[in-house]
Amino acid sequence: MEIDTGRLRSDLEESASIGAIEADEGRGRTVLTGSEANRDARDRLIERLEGAGLDVSVDAVGNLTGTWTPPSANPGEAPVAAGSHLDSVPEGGIFDGQLGVYAALEAIRSLQESGFEPARPLTVVSFTEEEGATFAGGLLGSSVATGQRSVENALALTDGGALDRDGRETQNGERDGGRTLERALEDIGYRGEGRLDASEWDAFLELHVEQDTVLESHDVSVGVVTAITGISHSSVQIRGKANHAGATAMTDRTDALAAASEFVLALEAAGNHAAEAGDNTAVATVGNCTVSPNATNVIPGTVDLGVDIRDVDGDVMRELLTEAETVLEALEGKRGVATTMERHLEVDPAAMSERCQQALESEATALGVDSLSLHSGAAHDAMNVARVTDTGMLFAPSRGGYSHSPLEWTDWEDCATATRVLAAAMARLSSER
Amino acid sequence: MEIDTGRLRSDLEESASIGAIEADEGRGRTVLTGSEANRDARDRLIERLEGAGLDVSVDAVGNLTGTWTPPSANPGEAPVAAGSHLDSVPEGGIFDGQLGVYAALEAIRSLQESGFEPARPLTVVSFTEEEGATFAGGLLGSSVATGQRSVENALALTDGGALDRDGRETQNGERDGGRTLERALEDIGYRGEGRLDASEWDAFLELHVEQDTVLESHDVSVGVVTAITGISHSSVQIRGKANHAGATAMTDRTDALAAASEFVLALEAAGNHAAEAGDNTAVATVGNCTVSPNATNVIPGTVDLGVDIRDVDGDVMRELLTEAETVLEALEGKRGVATTMERHLEVDPAAMSERCQQALESEATALGVDSLSLHSGAAHDAMNVARVTDTGMLFAPSRGGYSHSPLEWTDWEDCATATRVLAAAMARLSSER
Repeated sequence: MEIDTGRLRSDLEESASIGAIEADEGRGRTVLTGSEANRDARDRLIERLEGAGLDVSVDAVGNLTGTWTPPSANPGEAPVAAGSHLDSVPEGGIFDGQLGVYAALEAIRSLQESGFEPARPLTVVSFTEEEGATFAGGLLGSSVATGQRSVENALALTDGGALDRDGRETQNGERDGGRTLERALEDIGYRGEGRLDASEWDAFLELHVEQDTVLESHDVSVGVVTAITGISHSSVQIRGKANHAGATAMTDRTDALAAASEFVLALEAAGNHAAEAGDNTAVATVGNCTVSPNATNVIPGTVDLGVDIRDVDGDVMRELLTEAETVLEALEGKRGVATTMERHLEVDPAAMSERCQQALESEATALGVDSLSLHSGAAHDAMNVARVTDTGMLFAPSRGGYSHSPLEWTDWEDCATATRVLAAAMARLSSER
Repeated sequence: MEIDTGRLRSDLEESASIGAIEADEGRGRTVLTGSEANRDARDRLIERLEGAGLDVSVDAVGNLTGTWTPPSANPGEAPVAAGSHLDSVPEGGIFDGQLGVYAALEAIRSLQESGFEPARPLTVVSFTEEEGATFAGGLLGSSVATGQRSVENALALTDGGALDRDGRETQNGERDGGRTLERALEDIGYRGEGRLDASEWDAFLELHVEQDTVLESHDVSVGVVTAITGISHSSVQIRGKANHAGATAMTDRTDALAAASEFVLALEAAGNHAAEAGDNTAVATVGNCTVSPNATNVIPGTVDLGVDIRDVDGDVMRELLTEAETVLEALEGKRGVATTMERHLEVDPAAMSERCQQALESEATALGVDSLSLHSGAAHDAMNVARVTDTGMLFAPSRGGYSHSPLEWTDWEDCATATRVLAAAMARLSSER
């Protein structure tokens, strides 16, 4: 079996030209769910899937699959699926998501050409709205395909006031929401029928760019993901008393920013401690800090903080959250501020299955491709799918670790190498009955 | 001599009805320089000045005076002036500024009615654009009247991208600047001739609301200002490295917000220390904190801070600024951030003249009005005038310390009491040859 690097590259480059943006450096695209670019990218994928003889299907929330069921495969057997997503963040890169989709297709084409005879059907999947750039939630299509969100609920989501899966306000967050996902999909002709059910898959593999520098710094070609970290997002509000910065003596202040600063440093220290105590997987971040009234000459009255806590160990995450609450309580006593902490996103860590990790690792070894095991600090559709079937993830190196940016880059050879490992693992899994 | 409390109140309330805003609590107004409300407020003041027989004059930047030169006064003698400003911040209170203007007028009317014969002319003054809500600088009219800014420079200022005198972005800060002050004054008919020269005054007194709670907490009727604190504003930028909050290990971070938090706390500690070492007059504030990209799931890459440092002692201010720079330098070494600190406003403290303080204090005592000495943490036109002639400031109590808000309030009796002291001090100063 041989991967056609040129074919993979041309698939990716042609798809990258859809929604392409001007960028000073690198190469970017904007493919938002329900946009014309999203329709064009989907149209093109279907053309390629059909070109490979796959049976294409689109479910009610626009999840798109192409399935190869050759004579060797029992159509009644659970398929082995592989894929990712076509949508991008605004001004995102050209590899995030679509590499996983087109690599799965290239894997199947290569297997077809090599005369491989799977015992199970092989499916390429492209999930709807992974990024959450337009409709709330992120990982949206896979959340429906895994039964965590109903079709009805998903279709009723609107593109206004949305938070992405990381709780961040999306591009459209400031608009009044108007267009539902249902309408958006109808507009582009991708409101299909039924519900893709990932629990019916025998296994799922997702190839994705690493979005970090672990592979690059170890000079390793592929990474086999052991687990995807859980994510917790919380909103912290610290309320002091806004007052004139000139007329209010130091002794008469309840400065919300000074209190918030203590919180930021305490959370950082707790994150450092958890990372040291564990395998350097725990992270704690205050990424968002909004001060009111935010005028140089006014003592800050209110500070809103966005807190991001992740680890592959759910217990460590919960300990960090408790620590954050303890710090806030101490600040109330010490500084007279009022505080609230609201958890608005809690996703448990997702372990990748031993079987899938094994398949990816041993096929890499067999192909002479150096690999290493690592965790994913970012969320992926595989995180949802892992809750309903055996799931594995393979990372290709990201140059400089850039992602969600036109600077995102993975060398074509690295794309091909990872696709080769993916194809071999798909072959292995689909040979097992 | 008797102050007519009802007349003063009705003057203030009628003027307060110009630019009045809806407020849930309290009573507010928006009177921005060059607005219709500003024209109406000026028209009405002139009507009242002329009603008291004063000679009205408007200079090139709209500074407005009304002068009483009775037969007893030598027109060649330097006048004693009193006043403040008519403009407000957006949604400001009804006392800030206009109390000082109408109190000066009421003082002259009362002196006239009492048969008082001044040796010097008495002048009511209303300075243009004290608040800096529309045109850059703040204390604008007085800066021209004291020769710190030329007429030409002031008239060329535009209402876009402006910072107020405290370096804060104004309401119009986000607009592209278009209208010059000259045009704004022409539009409302207040682009006069010549330049008011405050150095030609024998003395200047400004009655203003305290905007703090010192008088209220001491249950004292008036405050005699000893000095107006200097102000220094600096922009601090701390640059770390924005990165994925999930995929970046704690050990691989250069978190600009964590560094900024250390700075905020170090500056607060330095401010506390300086306040303790002195007379509790030093203050150090980080009022503005803007994080980029400011997303919960992204490690902060850049933080911009607005730093406000004030004291009645210029040396203490300079020490605090040096301390801030030292802290930033230490953070560069400790955290690998890059930092810059740019001073963009430095106004030295302004001592009020002994002669004027004396006049205000002894007249308060003679009238049986309890007074105390205090410094002003806020800037006022008196700060500029003090650089060219003997200047004094009198504070009336602010209920709850509120200001720049519809909650700003000074009881009518307190307004009248302060006006009585002002009138007596004006009488004393204008009797001296």
